Amino acid sequence: MSRTIIDPKILKGTRDFLPTDMAKRDYVMDVMRSVFRKYGYDTIETPVINYAETILGKYGEEGDRLTYNFKDSGDRGIALPYDLTVPFARLVAANYSNLPMPFKRYQIQRVWRAEKPQKGRLREFYQCDIDVIGTKSLLAEAEVARIIVSVFEELGFENFRIKVNSRRLMNAILDSFGLDDDPLALIRIIDKMAKIGEDGVKNELSSIGVSQNKITELFDAFSKGDFSAYDMSEIEEFMGLCKDLCIDDKYIEFDPCLARGLDYYTGIIYEVVSDDVDFGTLCAGGRYDDLCGLFCKEDFSGVGVAFGFERIMLALEKMNRLADVPLSSKVLVTLFDSVSTAASLAIYNELVCAGINSEIYFEPAKLSEQFKYAAKKQVPFVVVSGPDERAKSEVTVKFMDSGNQKTIPVNQLISYIKGYV
Amino acid sequence: MSRTIIDPKILKGTRDFLPTDMAKRDYVMDVMRSVFRKYGYDTIETPVINYAETILGKYGEEGDRLTYNFKDSGDRGIALPYDLTVPFARLVAANYSNLPMPFKRYQIQRVWRAEKPQKGRLREFYQCDIDVIGTKSLLAEAEVARIIVSVFEELGFENFRIKVNSRRLMNAILDSFGLDDDPLALIRIIDKMAKIGEDGVKNELSSIGVSQNKITELFDAFSKGDFSAYDMSEIEEFMGLCKDLCIDDKYIEFDPCLARGLDYYTGIIYEVVSDDVDFGTLCAGGRYDDLCGLFCKEDFSGVGVAFGFERIMLALEKMNRLADVPLSSKVLVTLFDSVSTAASLAIYNELVCAGINSEIYFEPAKLSEQFKYAAKKQVPFVVVSGPDERAKSEVTVKFMDSGNQKTIPVNQLISYIKGYV
Repeated sequence: MSRTIIDPKILKGTRDFLPTDMAKRDYVMDVMRSVFRKYGYDTIETPVINYAETILGKYGEEGDRLTYNFKDSGDRGIALPYDLTVPFARLVAANYSNLPMPFKRYQIQRVWRAEKPQKGRLREFYQCDIDVIGTKSLLAEAEVARIIVSVFEELGFENFRIKVNSRRLMNAILDSFGLDDDPLALIRIIDKMAKIGEDGVKNELSSIGVSQNKITELFDAFSKGDFSAYDMSEIEEFMGLCKDLCIDDKYIEFDPCLARGLDYYTGIIYEVVSDDVDFGTLCAGGRYDDLCGLFCKEDFSGVGVAFGFERIMLALEKMNRLADVPLSSKVLVTLFDSVSTAASLAIYNELVCAGINSEIYFEPAKLSEQFKYAAKKQVPFVVVSGPDERAKSEVTVKFMDSGNQKTIPVNQLISYIKGYV
Repeated sequence: MSRTIIDPKILKGTRDFLPTDMAKRDYVMDVMRSVFRKYGYDTIETPVINYAETILGKYGEEGDRLTYNFKDSGDRGIALPYDLTVPFARLVAANYSNLPMPFKRYQIQRVWRAEKPQKGRLREFYQCDIDVIGTKSLLAEAEVARIIVSVFEELGFENFRIKVNSRRLMNAILDSFGLDDDPLALIRIIDKMAKIGEDGVKNELSSIGVSQNKITELFDAFSKGDFSAYDMSEIEEFMGLCKDLCIDDKYIEFDPCLARGLDYYTGIIYEVVSDDVDFGTLCAGGRYDDLCGLFCKEDFSGVGVAFGFERIMLALEKMNRLADVPLSSKVLVTLFDSVSTAASLAIYNELVCAGINSEIYFEPAKLSEQFKYAAKKQVPFVVVSGPDERAKSEVTVKFMDSGNQKTIPVNQLISYIKGYV
């Protein structure tokens, strides 16, 4: 009887992660988590299946189109998260009386976008957000900057910087040129500076009716870099607090053109770029007011940034920073023949009891096959206990990276291996 | 302008996890992960959105009914995972040439069931599976038993045991009574022994046409506990290997009535119960053949068990084993007044640089308010640097659990705190 075989394919824009992939992803997530925890950020988790009204209508028409949503068997509208900000805002609205305030949290979860998949556009991917809400203190902005610096330093980025600006300053500049009709439209255009260049921005400003005069004046002001006519106290205080928090100057760069397109920022905004790789923004965010307004009557002002986890993974791969992330096993104990089983198991038991991640090969087989298994699992040490070794109460340790072998007394094995792992 | 507030509710059978919940869940997952890794199991991850044909048709009519599935905007059928076994089988079928064989993996992910939610029935929950595939060696069964014992020991269970049986033995017993017409139907009934009792099982056997005579003979055989007429070599060899792997006898119990309802088991089967809590099965699984048959022509025999993660969480809560799991912060540095800010920040910087998870309060506030924050965040130590302390180059450390305070020289703070955290 022939059976129908189902193609084991997965949807484009989703991914299977094998152990070698997962080791790297877990390593990077662990570095991030440990930095967040160092600064007192704890984690939360929000559901994957949500009432559709929780998610829809928050990201504009395009966002709604890209949100996975469907009716369940009870005819309830269900939607998968499009990002982590809206689920976070909902969780806070539902639980704020039980949360410490200010509330600091990190969250690393998958989100979904019904995209046409292409390079860099996935249907299922991780986001990694930190937020501190319930305080208007600029120390929150400085703390978040310090966390950003720690994360990128710990991950091994060398040439990165946080571009910083203030929405208040940006609005004041636009105001002073009489460009206060629709500042958000202007900000969205100025935000494209890195993408479409100065000429591109000038053309777009012109196309929405800004006069050539004003455009010239505006760009003069930006290029002169003299903002003494404006209230710079917010930026200055922020810079001072960054110094107080021992953040190296080289990591912070005031960029008066930095705009961040999203409409909910109200104060300091940031964007992280790196010269190590040309991957655009690796992390971005800023100060917002009224996080939870859609879900409750309380106002929560806060600061939040999103780390571009998938982009950071690509950058680290490109920088060859993840080549050495190990898998679990440190030692494979071989099974030479059925007579040797008891001796091999005894060695294996000792290793495991000593807290050394170890494996025993499941059945007697050619040593070459067992070495092949060890190589494929990236196990650094293989222990052989054959008849010759046993006769002399010895074992042979093979170093898989060099191919070297060393025969030692069996009772020295644990301390020998512990010298390496 | 009044705005419409969206109810921040979540679907029944899904959950928000706050930091205090997450600390406990992460702790338990970390214990499990570290045991799995100790035995050379690495992790994989499979997508949440899948082609519907990957998931549907694998769990019977009931399973299909309970699987979340829908059409996406491109009219593709999409389904969310119902368990981790089918996605694992698909991943292996798609990748086996790149995987070490035998392949050992653990996987901890959410799965979804379109249930009518009620106590103990969730729509979204975690599963935690380990499997070793590509070997027929009984050592695999023994290794999995050892991992089970390690997990429950490490989690603090004291009175638990693995009930063990063999599908081969069960089939041989049924055969010997001439009950070989539909052994699986019988096995499914015998499997209910713990739930519906001996009389219940007898009634159900009778209702599918097994004669009273045969039922009596069968129960006599089970209750006599003498299986010398059958081939017990598999069970015996398994028990021997468990001994070789230093598994304490008290953890392994041969139970000839243990049946496990699922049809794909072919050899040793297990089920873990604990007398510490009456929560039924905490972990179960066994030997299967042909894991990937639905997705490829290769045969993979293996052994796998699923840990009932949510049930284990409930059990540990009930056993009061998770009360002490800490949140991230160890120290809160208070902000006494704006004059003290620089001194407080200097102390905070030192703590963070010393690798102690620390926080600074974001704005000067009443100390009582700052203590309240520390209490809510379960921060064990609060550092106060007021004018009196500063004048003498001292700081006051408040122990949040006892309320005690201790004033020490500021330059001894790091070593003092390190003595506790």
